[in-house]
Amino acid sequence: MKKIINDPLSVVDESVEGLLYAYGDFYEKVPEVNGIILKEKKKKVSIISGGGSGHEPMLSGLVGEGMLTGAAMGSVFASPDPNTISKTIISADQGEGVLCLVWNYAGDTMNFMVAQDLAMAAGTAVEQVIINDDVASAPRNDKDGRRGVAGMLFVAKIAGAAADLGYSLQEVKEIAQRANDNLRSIGVALTPCSIPGNPPNFNIGDNEFEYGMGIHGEAGVKREKMKTADNIVEEMLADIINDFGSLENKEVLVLVNGMAATTSLELNIMNRKLNHILKEKNVQVYDNVIGSFCTSLEMAGASISIMMLDEELKKLYNQPAYTPCYYHRGK
Amino acid sequence: MKKIINDPLSVVDESVEGLLYAYGDFYEKVPEVNGIILKEKKKKVSIISGGGSGHEPMLSGLVGEGMLTGAAMGSVFASPDPNTISKTIISADQGEGVLCLVWNYAGDTMNFMVAQDLAMAAGTAVEQVIINDDVASAPRNDKDGRRGVAGMLFVAKIAGAAADLGYSLQEVKEIAQRANDNLRSIGVALTPCSIPGNPPNFNIGDNEFEYGMGIHGEAGVKREKMKTADNIVEEMLADIINDFGSLENKEVLVLVNGMAATTSLELNIMNRKLNHILKEKNVQVYDNVIGSFCTSLEMAGASISIMMLDEELKKLYNQPAYTPCYYHRGK
Repeated sequence: MKKIINDPLSVVDESVEGLLYAYGDFYEKVPEVNGIILKEKKKKVSIISGGGSGHEPMLSGLVGEGMLTGAAMGSVFASPDPNTISKTIISADQGEGVLCLVWNYAGDTMNFMVAQDLAMAAGTAVEQVIINDDVASAPRNDKDGRRGVAGMLFVAKIAGAAADLGYSLQEVKEIAQRANDNLRSIGVALTPCSIPGNPPNFNIGDNEFEYGMGIHGEAGVKREKMKTADNIVEEMLADIINDFGSLENKEVLVLVNGMAATTSLELNIMNRKLNHILKEKNVQVYDNVIGSFCTSLEMAGASISIMMLDEELKKLYNQPAYTPCYYHRGK
Repeated sequence: MKKIINDPLSVVDESVEGLLYAYGDFYEKVPEVNGIILKEKKKKVSIISGGGSGHEPMLSGLVGEGMLTGAAMGSVFASPDPNTISKTIISADQGEGVLCLVWNYAGDTMNFMVAQDLAMAAGTAVEQVIINDDVASAPRNDKDGRRGVAGMLFVAKIAGAAADLGYSLQEVKEIAQRANDNLRSIGVALTPCSIPGNPPNFNIGDNEFEYGMGIHGEAGVKREKMKTADNIVEEMLADIINDFGSLENKEVLVLVNGMAATTSLELNIMNRKLNHILKEKNVQVYDNVIGSFCTSLEMAGASISIMMLDEELKKLYNQPAYTPCYYHRGK
């Protein structure tokens, strides 16, 4: 598959360099590795994340004020190594400790574990929360087996706000964990994607879509014949709501996320039906974000994420945040 | 081509409805037509734009504080009709007049002309600036024949700031015209796109790209064999700089814009080379924006836009702006 690159092996290095040209007054590079951290240092708990590249603007794009303090970037669809992660953790620390938000993939959780040990050995207090919002990837009684996907946006928002408000490392961890526990996502794919230099990572028919696929093209729950946007959203939302049990009379955050080649027109059309259904079920949409925040390279597809709010989560969500790809003015 | 839609004929209506669910506290719909305007009314010159759908987040996504006051949306890749445009103009007016920023396509310029006459007949003062930043679409001595593309972002930013600072309609028009005159863009396409319900709008080989194509898939200057990102950017930038004559010792705004299926990794890699070249040529990048702001449905491709700054344009660029897809904190 055609891409605008120079060399499949230098994609991430060159991308990080290009990103820093654009946002070099805001970000700085962690020496020697593909990590970035905020240039402006503040004495508070630091939040970092990290994972394979290919989901941009996530995860690097979540680094900003009121969000992540730093991010460690691996090769495309491959975890950053422990050295990259530990250097990012140590660079981000301002003496108040570091919370790691880790998408639940075997490579990431293993490398983060090693990296956290390295950082702790170097004197940094570290905690982590595993993000596992994808309801399609394991049954309800096995949430620990679920993958992490686009809902990371909301967890980073909540954790970043808590750090801004002076929460301790333990307190930031607890509220980030609650944000994750209150979060559910599900995705569909219409086309495959391809790691630079490689063929497409799966095949799919001209009139089919994959229901419940992962953000690296992991097989979903089933392969279905294409159907209307409304029918797709009905199915996705039913699975999310069933997983919560009920959302009746709850306030929620909603993210309709594009995987790349799905247009804003399509995301808006999904958002329309989603709001119809939530209204019908007496679920109150507290805020509704639409955009391609967590992509799967050039894949066509979309996901829906819903976070159930309580008073504390709402207060934290209302804090201001600013990154090059996400902005909340505060209220 | 597969899309997450219900009916090709209702794509824009349903998308506008979905958009308003997400941003209904910020936008309001122009009654009876697919137009949106800012909910909060301020006594200043209003700025509107409009055009075919399928370029989202443009043009509707440029509606916000310090940017456009409203946008009129046509069917996919088709101009909004004069009634839609004139109603949007009239709804946007706060008694200080309305400037229309119009991409240079035959259907758009014709319908805007009729719409402006209708609005003026109804008592609204209206002026327009035609946006024609695409250097590939006509030679240097025929700028009036050139299409408008992603550089619209910067013109909307400048015009919106001028209106915020209390410029008169005539003054906003003059500075928007200067912003456009100082603006050049060029794009490349790797894949076609398809209007909902239709086949792909052109064919392109697995190892080819279209150089200088338009945002609706209009044929470019030439078809080339795929080459490296660096070589593509060298060619694009040479054409932009030649068109300016020289940019030596100038300060510029740079936008690296994705068409949809081109990943942020690729855009960042383009941005890297672009900054190398500009540095080598003693061009100072005053601000550098990367993102998929002006898409061509699900096309893979990218464009580069450069605006040459002067003191007044710089002052206006530094004013704050906020839309759901673009923000500038001011400085």
